[in-house]
Amino acid sequence: MLKPLDPLLHSELRLAVMSLLVGVEEADFVFLKEETGASAGNLSVQIDKLSTAGYIEVEKKFVGKRPQTLCRITPTGAKAMEVYVETLKTYLKLEK
Amino acid sequence: MLKPLDPLLHSELRLAVMSLLVGVEEADFVFLKEETGASAGNLSVQIDKLSTAGYIEVEKKFVGKRPQTLCRITPTGAKAMEVYVETLKTYLKLEK
Repeated sequence: MLKPLDPLLHSELRLAVMSLLVGVEEADFVFLKEETGASAGNLSVQIDKLSTAGYIEVEKKFVGKRPQTLCRITPTGAKAMEVYVETLKTYLKLEK
Repeated sequence: MLKPLDPLLHSELRLAVMSLLVGVEEADFVFLKEETGASAGNLSVQIDKLSTAGYIEVEKKFVGKRPQTLCRITPTGAKAMEVYVETLKTYLKLEK
C-alpha cells in the first residue's frame, strides 16, 4: 500500500516555500513572495503553519526602518522534506 | 517563478490512483482501493473527477454476477502526469 504523504508538505504553496528554503541559509518574505507568486496574506498563513510545525524558523527584524521577515528551514523540516520526497518517489516511481 | 502544479493531480488520492494506472493496461476498483487504502466513497468521487477531466476512462461491467469497475489512463492523463512530474521536479530540484 502507498504510504501517506505529509499533508503539511503536500500543499502547493507550502511545498514551494520549503523547496525554496532547502539548500539556502535563509530567505526573506519578499523573495518567497516573488518566487511563489502568492499573495502576502496566503504566504503569511502558510509560513505560520510551517513555523508552528517546527519545519521553519521565522525571524522578524528591521533593516533600517524596513521590517524584514527571514525564514530558515530547521533540521526537523529538512528531515520532513527528505521523507516527503522519498515517499513521493514511490508514487511516481522515480527510481533515478 | 515556480510553475503551478495541476490541482487535479496534486491531491494525494488522485495522484495515487494515477500513479497506479501509469504503466498498467487497466486496474479495477478493488485493486485501487486496496493499494490506496481509501474508502470506497472517497475513491469513487476521485475516480469520477479524473474521468470527468478525461484523465482516465472508466468501464463498468459484470464478471458473472459481480460488478467490476475498470480504470484506464488516457493519453491526456498520461501527458498530464508527465507535465506534473516535470513541474514537481523543478520544485524538488530532482535533476537526476
